[in-house]
Amino acid sequence: MSRVVKLAVIPGDGIGPEVVAEAEKVLDAVIAGSDVAFDKTRFSLGAGRFLETGDTLTDDDLGAIADHDAILLGAVGGVPGDPRLRDANIERGLLLKLRFELDHYVNLRPSKLYPGVPGPLADPGDIDFVVVREGTEGPYVGNGGSIRRGTPHEVANETSVNTAFGVERVVRYAFALAERRRQKLTLVHKTNVLVHAGGIWKRIVDQVAAEHPEVAVDYLHVDAATIFLVTNPGRFDVIVTDNLFGDILTDLAGAVTGGIGLAASGNINPDGAFPSMFEPVHGSAPDIAGQQKADPTAAILSVALMLDHLGLRDHAERVTRAVETDIAARTSDARSTPQIGDAIVARLQA
Amino acid sequence: MSRVVKLAVIPGDGIGPEVVAEAEKVLDAVIAGSDVAFDKTRFSLGAGRFLETGDTLTDDDLGAIADHDAILLGAVGGVPGDPRLRDANIERGLLLKLRFELDHYVNLRPSKLYPGVPGPLADPGDIDFVVVREGTEGPYVGNGGSIRRGTPHEVANETSVNTAFGVERVVRYAFALAERRRQKLTLVHKTNVLVHAGGIWKRIVDQVAAEHPEVAVDYLHVDAATIFLVTNPGRFDVIVTDNLFGDILTDLAGAVTGGIGLAASGNINPDGAFPSMFEPVHGSAPDIAGQQKADPTAAILSVALMLDHLGLRDHAERVTRAVETDIAARTSDARSTPQIGDAIVARLQA
Ligand SMILES: CC(C)[C@H](C(=O)O)[C@@H](O)C(=O)O
Ligand SMILES: CC(C)[C@H](C(=O)O)[C@@H](O)C(=O)O
Repeated sequence: MSRVVKLAVIPGDGIGPEVVAEAEKVLDAVIAGSDVAFDKTRFSLGAGRFLETGDTLTDDDLGAIADHDAILLGAVGGVPGDPRLRDANIERGLLLKLRFELDHYVNLRPSKLYPGVPGPLADPGDIDFVVVREGTEGPYVGNGGSIRRGTPHEVANETSVNTAFGVERVVRYAFALAERRRQKLTLVHKTNVLVHAGGIWKRIVDQVAAEHPEVAVDYLHVDAATIFLVTNPGRFDVIVTDNLFGDILTDLAGAVTGGIGLAASGNINPDGAFPSMFEPVHGSAPDIAGQQKADPTAAILSVALMLDHLGLRDHAERVTRAVETDIAARTSDARSTPQIGDAIVARLQA
Repeated sequence: MSRVVKLAVIPGDGIGPEVVAEAEKVLDAVIAGSDVAFDKTRFSLGAGRFLETGDTLTDDDLGAIADHDAILLGAVGGVPGDPRLRDANIERGLLLKLRFELDHYVNLRPSKLYPGVPGPLADPGDIDFVVVREGTEGPYVGNGGSIRRGTPHEVANETSVNTAFGVERVVRYAFALAERRRQKLTLVHKTNVLVHAGGIWKRIVDQVAAEHPEVAVDYLHVDAATIFLVTNPGRFDVIVTDNLFGDILTDLAGAVTGGIGLAASGNINPDGAFPSMFEPVHGSAPDIAGQQKADPTAAILSVALMLDHLGLRDHAERVTRAVETDIAARTSDARSTPQIGDAIVARLQA
């Protein structure tokens, strides 16, 4: 009996289409001959589409995308400072809108230092942790405004909104993940300053911790967490944190594990009410777009996260192993985007 | 004609008194025989005082401290998790209260990699930048609250407040500093997500930039800034940013320049309406308190910042040079806190 997965593909802008092409190549190769098929629909969204049509993400787009089993996204965003995009905010209007509307409350970002990958740290040690970043609340809710804008009397506010419902569900996910990993969970926040936003996180982690006595729970202020990410990243197993701190920590984590060219992520709706979305952590990098210079590995590892999420564990494992073998054999990486994709496909088929 | 500087000394908790003792030693040594005298008043404040008296910072304390020319602070805060401090919040009630009440709108945090200092980066390059962190606004204002606290229906909000008045004054300070340095200023924020809080910063930086055509202005999202801090910290000269992002970036910057045992800071009221306060970036480190193990260098460099702020440039220079000479001669640093202080005093007198 064969299974058909409906996949929405959003190549996006800049290097997005280049890396997604390789991710699709690898996906096609890993499922070839198996009893799973991917029925793909392509969505042209991003700065390019906005410039052509003025649309960012219409209700029709959203409805059509929601009617899939999963989403693969490259990267969206135009050239920084492009005056034609001044009022667009592709990030809020497209990327964050997808995350919020599709209730992607778990933003899953694994960080692993693969053997052979050069990174900025002199003595990195073993790095293998996952950041569980909340995806639908916190300072990202867009609950802000300003008065007397542009005058000397402007006041601009931005509110972080945190609910017990929203915090508890992501904290529960993080504890379950810690159970399956090395049973260590670190909450990162800034409870000493953000007493209300931090307080709800701390209380809920303490409550859920009581149900998981086998998970060792730790707390770090966000500033201290950045120190440990460069001095002792090996101490982390699962980090759970809010939307903004998770954004910051995962870029830093990507850097210490050899660059965001390798960092994959999943925007997950664990309940399955909406399709989850998989994307590299990196952006659209317009400065190198069209040159086939981007490393598609992060997009390919995002396919592995997607396969795992879809319950296709063996396929996910095979992609991850092929990537690991390719990475271990890398020397200077002067290869083009498709050369890296082809090499990983060859490893898969070996 | 001799000048008398009224100095409020707040040794604080944990390693605070140990590092402040060395900072005072160095201060005494550098002014010995000069026409400047420091008239010191000691204030017993912090977790220790709270446990004894229940007070954190009274109006009388504040009034007495305000009646000084400068403040030297060690570190405040008790043992994490101490149940007797559960409702204290020494950070908000003491440290942040001082910064807010004394209108310390510039939180000045230089980051420099001194020759010979081991750091976590394999190839750090030349690191020499200053973070100008806003000190009286942003997510630190304490403008938050929660409803249905502790129930499954809790909502906890925290509002970042940013005013044109508050942003402009710190941005102007940063531009003036960049003029005196390498004429490069980087604004760090998260304008693509925090559109209102980020928007006011961006607009004001653009406005003030127009008055400083010789300063090259750059913008980075906070997540990208953390990447550059570990992959190319040499690109920074002056970073200007809000209270929370500044907190995060300066701990990370401290780590990449060899640890927060060396990171000094000034909480500055440039207008001179209130005394400015100088303190190491590190905390009270209760785990090593009383053992004379802490490095007093950050506290000593904070004295140099203070001397500079007071217009005592030569004295500031001498302290900085003595510290640099000491650091350059360091091998493993098995020296005790007073041994390091004494060594720096000896360099001063050499
Ligand atoms: C592009 C931006 C809105 C986004 C975020 O802040 O979440 C990005 O930085 C990320 O981490 O996926
Ligand atoms: C102790 C804490 C309130 C403080 C801050 O967040 O400002 C500290 O981290 C710092 O950077 O001085």
